[in-house]
Amino acid sequence: MSQKAPWVNFRPEIKVLDCTVRDGGLINSHRFEDHFVKGVYDACVAGGIDIMEIGYKADGKIFSAAENGPWKFSKEEDIRRAIGDNDTDLKISVMADAEKTDYHNDILPKKDSVIDVIRVATYISQVPVAMDMVKDFVQKGYEVHLNLMALSVVQDKELDDALEIFAASDIKAMAIVDSFGTFLPLQIRDYAKRFMDAAEGTGKEIAIHAHNNRQLAFANTIEALICGVNYLDATMMGMGRGAGNCPMELLISLLRNPKFNLRAILECVETQMLPMRKAFEWGALVPYNITGHFNEHPRSAIAMRESEEKDKFLKFYDYHNEA
Amino acid sequence: MSQKAPWVNFRPEIKVLDCTVRDGGLINSHRFEDHFVKGVYDACVAGGIDIMEIGYKADGKIFSAAENGPWKFSKEEDIRRAIGDNDTDLKISVMADAEKTDYHNDILPKKDSVIDVIRVATYISQVPVAMDMVKDFVQKGYEVHLNLMALSVVQDKELDDALEIFAASDIKAMAIVDSFGTFLPLQIRDYAKRFMDAAEGTGKEIAIHAHNNRQLAFANTIEALICGVNYLDATMMGMGRGAGNCPMELLISLLRNPKFNLRAILECVETQMLPMRKAFEWGALVPYNITGHFNEHPRSAIAMRESEEKDKFLKFYDYHNEA
Repeated sequence: MSQKAPWVNFRPEIKVLDCTVRDGGLINSHRFEDHFVKGVYDACVAGGIDIMEIGYKADGKIFSAAENGPWKFSKEEDIRRAIGDNDTDLKISVMADAEKTDYHNDILPKKDSVIDVIRVATYISQVPVAMDMVKDFVQKGYEVHLNLMALSVVQDKELDDALEIFAASDIKAMAIVDSFGTFLPLQIRDYAKRFMDAAEGTGKEIAIHAHNNRQLAFANTIEALICGVNYLDATMMGMGRGAGNCPMELLISLLRNPKFNLRAILECVETQMLPMRKAFEWGALVPYNITGHFNEHPRSAIAMRESEEKDKFLKFYDYHNEA
Repeated sequence: MSQKAPWVNFRPEIKVLDCTVRDGGLINSHRFEDHFVKGVYDACVAGGIDIMEIGYKADGKIFSAAENGPWKFSKEEDIRRAIGDNDTDLKISVMADAEKTDYHNDILPKKDSVIDVIRVATYISQVPVAMDMVKDFVQKGYEVHLNLMALSVVQDKELDDALEIFAASDIKAMAIVDSFGTFLPLQIRDYAKRFMDAAEGTGKEIAIHAHNNRQLAFANTIEALICGVNYLDATMMGMGRGAGNCPMELLISLLRNPKFNLRAILECVETQMLPMRKAFEWGALVPYNITGHFNEHPRSAIAMRESEEKDKFLKFYDYHNEA
């Protein structure tokens, strides 16, 4: 990139991952209709998106099909029914949560699956099982990424050890995940450097998954990409649990690789996302500002927004500010 | 500031200016009730805000009182009726637009006014009249700031000349104004450096006034303050024309000078701003993303949001993308 105006040109290594259906599924219990999933898929293909994350691969013995829609499980037949066999350049990914996935049984060999990429999501305490999952998925033929969740509450020394383990594994990419939407761009810069230092010489890529609690998801994604992070997560209209994610339409308006097509993204926002936003709430609302500020999981804010006290910002702040 | 985690401590030079009533007045034709103005004022006092901008000083021969509420003119008696004589540490400011202010007649000597600070707003083409206004206001005893509007469409060479003129004047502060909400943090960094270089040795402060078209108002304000910009504009709940401004509640959650009080700001957001937001629309909606992306004035997006085509994002994009 030119030093004078680095945003004028582009870095071909940058890959964009759409996780609208996966992260958005946390709002509606993963009950998207096929036509919505297909709409997002079509926009990803037309928009030049690199990877579309279509849902979780949750264990049916832990999560019931009565309480969760199909995109909690992302069964082969459900994916193929919604989007076909995906004979395109777009890769399909699923997220496999550590301890919540029956990975030996529920993940087919790659040759039998429409899935290309599996992202293993892990808390720091779950790294050993996550690494066993990585091994299993790599052996089955998948491209495997690793998302270290809730990074903002991981202790420094634990992170160093975890990064060493990740760097020695067969993952393709490891992600900075700001689950609580608490990080400032300055902090993203520090983490990007640490992750990139850990990955140096391994050929692994660093990814960023930002949440918008403090209206910083897009800014933090920009900061990460300036630092050399090449894999960027976003969702259509920023749909995602609580405050939501980095909005795809903002990210694609920034990226100048001609393969990206902002118009296709905006069409999806207008036709698919706007009706969704009218039915479900997400965005950088004040309660999410507050949990982000306190570096806390947004669950209390989500519960508050679903209660009669949805607008009692001050009471909510006082509760979180209690000694 | 410490290099290790500069956000842990604070820079006492940082001053925060609330322009909720002034910028927010562009949404409702400046028709705020006194109790609202007083509510924002009380929150500014309790919240440790340094300056509250209460309205414009528009020329009554150009703008009619029938079409504009009192905060378009900010008459002495209106200010005193709403907030009293302001015997507090909070400074009161007004904005005086170049070519739209009868400044010789409408601005009293400072000793007769409750106003402390006048901010002169100027386009690059209006610099000569703006400088005459600065002279008049300084002679009358005011602290004077200068806001160079629409910076993102000012040519580089013109800017250099303008900065030289500003640096030689008696203004206290000069502001980077991202009227179209188009700048990325990287660009703010460049402008902050240019403004600070121009101000070096003069004792003048640099200010930032960001708009939120691309969800970057808070991030750009953070970037500016990291670069050494000390005067920061924000509005309660981000209220402001179109996409709105840097939200005060986010800014104050970041600043760690103990004089600031986030709770007082949140109380104002809950009691004053939330009802306002239910009556009027502002925020980083998709049409404002688009005008920000194209570095255009948001007026087309504002008109579109007031029309039957308010949700026709794609048509709006195509219109702006026309060759």
